[in-house]
Amino acid sequence: MMSMFPSSRRGFFAGSAGLLGAAMSGGARQARAAEPAVEPFHGLHQAGIATPPQGFTSFAVFDVTAGTRDALQGLLQRWTAAAAQMTSGDPPDPADRDDAPGLPPARLTVTFGFGPGLFEKEGRDRFGLRARRPPALIDLPPFAGDALEPARTGGDISVQACADDPQTAFHAVRRLARIAAGDARIRWAQAGFLSPRGAGTPRNLLGFKDGTQNVNVADPFALDTFVWSGLEGPAAMRGGTYLVVRRIGLAVERWDGVDVSEQERIIGRRKVSGAPAGGEREFEVERFDRLDGAGRPAVAADAHVRLAAYEASGARILRRGYSYEDGGIGGYETGLLFMAYQKDPRSGFVKMFGRMAGADRLMRFTTHVGSGVFAVPPGVAAGGWVGEGLFG
Amino acid sequence: MMSMFPSSRRGFFAGSAGLLGAAMSGGARQARAAEPAVEPFHGLHQAGIATPPQGFTSFAVFDVTAGTRDALQGLLQRWTAAAAQMTSGDPPDPADRDDAPGLPPARLTVTFGFGPGLFEKEGRDRFGLRARRPPALIDLPPFAGDALEPARTGGDISVQACADDPQTAFHAVRRLARIAAGDARIRWAQAGFLSPRGAGTPRNLLGFKDGTQNVNVADPFALDTFVWSGLEGPAAMRGGTYLVVRRIGLAVERWDGVDVSEQERIIGRRKVSGAPAGGEREFEVERFDRLDGAGRPAVAADAHVRLAAYEASGARILRRGYSYEDGGIGGYETGLLFMAYQKDPRSGFVKMFGRMAGADRLMRFTTHVGSGVFAVPPGVAAGGWVGEGLFG
Repeated sequence: MMSMFPSSRRGFFAGSAGLLGAAMSGGARQARAAEPAVEPFHGLHQAGIATPPQGFTSFAVFDVTAGTRDALQGLLQRWTAAAAQMTSGDPPDPADRDDAPGLPPARLTVTFGFGPGLFEKEGRDRFGLRARRPPALIDLPPFAGDALEPARTGGDISVQACADDPQTAFHAVRRLARIAAGDARIRWAQAGFLSPRGAGTPRNLLGFKDGTQNVNVADPFALDTFVWSGLEGPAAMRGGTYLVVRRIGLAVERWDGVDVSEQERIIGRRKVSGAPAGGEREFEVERFDRLDGAGRPAVAADAHVRLAAYEASGARILRRGYSYEDGGIGGYETGLLFMAYQKDPRSGFVKMFGRMAGADRLMRFTTHVGSGVFAVPPGVAAGGWVGEGLFG
Repeated sequence: MMSMFPSSRRGFFAGSAGLLGAAMSGGARQARAAEPAVEPFHGLHQAGIATPPQGFTSFAVFDVTAGTRDALQGLLQRWTAAAAQMTSGDPPDPADRDDAPGLPPARLTVTFGFGPGLFEKEGRDRFGLRARRPPALIDLPPFAGDALEPARTGGDISVQACADDPQTAFHAVRRLARIAAGDARIRWAQAGFLSPRGAGTPRNLLGFKDGTQNVNVADPFALDTFVWSGLEGPAAMRGGTYLVVRRIGLAVERWDGVDVSEQERIIGRRKVSGAPAGGEREFEVERFDRLDGAGRPAVAADAHVRLAAYEASGARILRRGYSYEDGGIGGYETGLLFMAYQKDPRSGFVKMFGRMAGADRLMRFTTHVGSGVFAVPPGVAAGGWVGEGLFG
């Protein structure tokens, strides 16, 4: 199965399958088909975080309906086993009624996160986990401009399935939902895509390159600094991280009515090249003190990239967002399934977005309609199960 | 830009870009990027019908709000020009506010169809086209089991954008909707995908290969017999065809609860191999007189493939369906965006599905919730516009 992304984006963290894929990029199609693209499931960290982004996601938040701690543990054990099997590329048992014969692993990753409600809900310690709630797993504060739908906000467990085949990603969520029957049910779900665009930074639905200043997943120092939970957090979370999800609607019709020069002012970067305003190359250092010909800041005070920049907020997060287009009656609904991983949401998303909300000029075109925060436990060893450290 | 499909599926009709793509499949990535995959827009037939299926569709049905024949003509002219530009791979004008710099053509095709309402609506001859309505453009009769939503049924103009990049396909619909402002608006929209699965027949969300017995788009005789409108129809439709669209919900949770052996009985084919029941190879001839060990028909009387077969209905249509997964609140909604092209719906879809509806055992798992029928005019020469023959 061909990856949708050129081999150069398969970085250090893609593991042996990724390196093999790179070596094969000019090789015979037969060899490609015989060596399915597999991301290792077991490891220090869960896959799907520092994994170079796959082309598609099928994301779902579940509400746990299990009534006992044992039932919840059982669910997590069944889910771990199923995720390990589906990501492996091994053929499924043909007697499985929900199997998908011939479905390629397509670099499938399945990443689980635990919401605040799993530790404590409406004052109840549902599963004896209240005392284990990580301090970094805060309840997100309200932000200026929030228009959150309760049905797409909160939830107990997040499942982020990503793959280079949309059907592989969807099948993972479908199978996990089936396995969960009686113990958990989907609260909300969202499919998303990235565009494959040669070797460049993918563009969002605003037409701008998105991710130029992102944390580099091939840089272990950056990941340890900004993403992985370490000695500052509970032992059960070391090697884990925290996910903030926002479903962000984009008013693309209104955006398309704005002149490109004004779009560039709002973003603070050039549309075609991706260069910072006043600059020439996408990856050049952003100099926020640069002035334009009239002596004003080249990057406006309310430009999106200025307010999001590390220099402004002191926060850096690993964004892993996907565009979505939902068809529907009377038109389409479109936007960004924003997913970002960080060592601590208090010093990550909350710090960054708290400064942007209400100030970022781009927010005239965006509406945050869904939200969630999840503690993402570390990876598991063979025979282990996701989250076991929190139950120990 | 890499195609999601192996070069072997780019058949005779893919044109020079397709053949070039095939020749390049083992070549250097740089050469690939320098030669974008383009499907020719101009020609005898509209592209997107006999074109080997791309990986993604963004489909929309528009209601025309223009009040005059001239305004409708103007819309069709603007849409034709925009579709020709977007499919060409030529860079868009950077001053265009809704441009998408760097967006690959990705074999984009845009296929337009005219619904009955364009010719006559509620007794009114809105655009002076009543007398030009092709006899084959019938109003679809009701079928057993129909659960059609009015908002997803009917409509004046269909736009089927297909590409190997979901963002390219969506951008086409987004741009056409913007260009239409004041003259047409989206009635309903649906995104869909096919799975890339090496060289094999793609599988639908039931896990079965889908399309084994489809009309071969590389066979001009089959296309002339079953798909293209010819001397039997009006001159303005020669080289055109007729599209029947059905939005078909699939109850995948219930399907996943059925044993594989029963799934195979319902479909009439083997799940893993795709072979006919009682047979061994996917592409072997279906022999409906074959008996099983107990002396019963190997393919049950109510099996899907028996009722759909040409031998049973005398009808053959060119199916070009896409799976869909719509996220949502409380779960996901999933199914098939069924699109089929035919010389005449009366001898095509109506004849075939009229026999299946109410009898096909698979219908216990499907719900037809959207529907439309459209006259798809022939292709246009450079300088022409889609549908001009009907206005002549």
